[in-house]
Amino acid sequence: MNDHPRFTASDPHYETRIRDSFARQGIMKHLGARLVELAPGHVTIQVPFRPELTQQHNFFHAGVSATIADSACGYAAYTLMPADSSVLTVEYKMNLLAPADGEELIARARVLRSGKTLKICAADVLVRKNASDVHCATMLATIMCLPGKPDRPR
Amino acid sequence: MNDHPRFTASDPHYETRIRDSFARQGIMKHLGARLVELAPGHVTIQVPFRPELTQQHNFFHAGVSATIADSACGYAAYTLMPADSSVLTVEYKMNLLAPADGEELIARARVLRSGKTLKICAADVLVRKNASDVHCATMLATIMCLPGKPDRPR
Amino acid sequence: MNDHPRFTASDPHYETRIRDSFARQGIMKHLGARLVELAPGHVTIQVPFRPELTQQHNFFHAGVSATIADSACGYAAYTLMPADSSVLTVEYKMNLLAPADGEELIARARVLRSGKTLKICAADVLVRKNASDVHCATMLATIMCLPGKPDRPR
Amino acid sequence: MNDHPRFTASDPHYETRIRDSFARQGIMKHLGARLVELAPGHVTIQVPFRPELTQQHNFFHAGVSATIADSACGYAAYTLMPADSSVLTVEYKMNLLAPADGEELIARARVLRSGKTLKICAADVLVRKNASDVHCATMLATIMCLPGKPDRPR
Repeated sequence: MNDHPRFTASDPHYETRIRDSFARQGIMKHLGARLVELAPGHVTIQVPFRPELTQQHNFFHAGVSATIADSACGYAAYTLMPADSSVLTVEYKMNLLAPADGEELIARARVLRSGKTLKICAADVLVRKNASDVHCATMLATIMCLPGKPDRPR
Repeated sequence: MNDHPRFTASDPHYETRIRDSFARQGIMKHLGARLVELAPGHVTIQVPFRPELTQQHNFFHAGVSATIADSACGYAAYTLMPADSSVLTVEYKMNLLAPADGEELIARARVLRSGKTLKICAADVLVRKNASDVHCATMLATIMCLPGKPDRPR
Repeated sequence: MNDHPRFTASDPHYETRIRDSFARQGIMKHLGARLVELAPGHVTIQVPFRPELTQQHNFFHAGVSATIADSACGYAAYTLMPADSSVLTVEYKMNLLAPADGEELIARARVLRSGKTLKICAADVLVRKNASDVHCATMLATIMCLPGKPDRPR
Repeated sequence: MNDHPRFTASDPHYETRIRDSFARQGIMKHLGARLVELAPGHVTIQVPFRPELTQQHNFFHAGVSATIADSACGYAAYTLMPADSSVLTVEYKMNLLAPADGEELIARARVLRSGKTLKICAADVLVRKNASDVHCATMLATIMCLPGKPDRPR
């Protein structure tokens, strides 16, 4: 079964559109997150460890995994949407697989199914420690396209 | 049907235990979150608006809702666990119901079912704007008790 | 917080529309399920115990809970949709709270938020044993309206 | 990232144990489901189309997908559990990706993470039509091991 369909972006300027949107997400800057991969149907967001991002055992809080995986899913879906649309997360589910104990957290999202209104996305969150990656969380998300509502600053 | 069973905490010191744990969550301080209600099976966490917490439309990012709802569910479950245990989020699902547009975000969690190993919790996230509350997200979470592993600083 | 908003059905014939659709679901007849409550934003489906519906311990299989809760959510949402629309389940999450050990399984669904395209629904599944009800499962579901596609036999 | 870890079964008789348990699930017989693949951490369940399994448009009802995917996840996890244990589904989330329109429905489950108490599983549901498979649903499930409670007829 093919979990990784090939997509093409109908909007040739999707990259600028998404980088602009990402730059306006105050939380990404506050977490220290960077958009490190951007391709049709695929987005990766990374965040280095800081004590400001922890739960009580000094690992990354699951909320950080959720935040970057959610944005990665949203933007993976957004690569496939028209230029004059906005993107909205309808819902997601996340399973935590291992403690997020490491120097860097990496959320890799991909579109599983691209409907006109809804895109179903999956993301895996890895934690990197001593150059080795552990699969620490997995997400399934439903992302909605709002056509005719450009994603501009308000 | 009764969604709100009455619980009693077996550990008389649960409040101190949880306030200490909450204080060690670096992310809570980084988000500006406060623990505003703490009772057996019930926890509420609140966070005031700041531009550092936003998505691209200047509303609270869903990741903030998820982070405080996740911690609220975890601590609601933790009120019912023994003194020498740790708490772990296994998974959750969150549906976003309305834009989190307001001055304050409030996550109210309650235990739905309290098994020895697993506690199933629900949380509702409200956004307060001009003294009126809108139900902006709802979460179902599975929380695990790790017995014999006190939740101490490491 | 109000989990139970009041809804009105825009289609005065919603009841006939939904009873016809329910009657065409072969699986409902195969499970022995009946539509026992139908109101704007609210649907209840019940199924009596039979050995054909069990898992390995002779309780109702969780799949039966899921099937009737899914249809109850779908039809609760469908009460609020226009006459010429179809209804589609996008996704759901179900937590199992207790063994479904009893004589009757009852899924009660309600609409939490009614958007034009998407309706977010919740369902609780109760199992009735010796005239007492146990809350055995809870579901959160995302239901989609397909306008201009009447739900007719094909 | 490796979604497919290799597992070994600690119980050499896992196959008999699981086939016996499957045979006691009344719902599997009622749906016409067969266990077609059984390996450590992997289970596939198939069900041929019948009008008794449909929703209102004459496709497989999502409840059938959920029922076989849930059992496939449960048994995939159960392959890795001790001989004297029982298996329990804690929760799952399912996204529906395409109409389940075809002659056969196939749920393929795999264990993503195998903890002692909890196993996190994923399942994909395919629908086969004219010898071609469409990915129609995807599930994430949390499965629990109850040690010291053999899964015997009651």
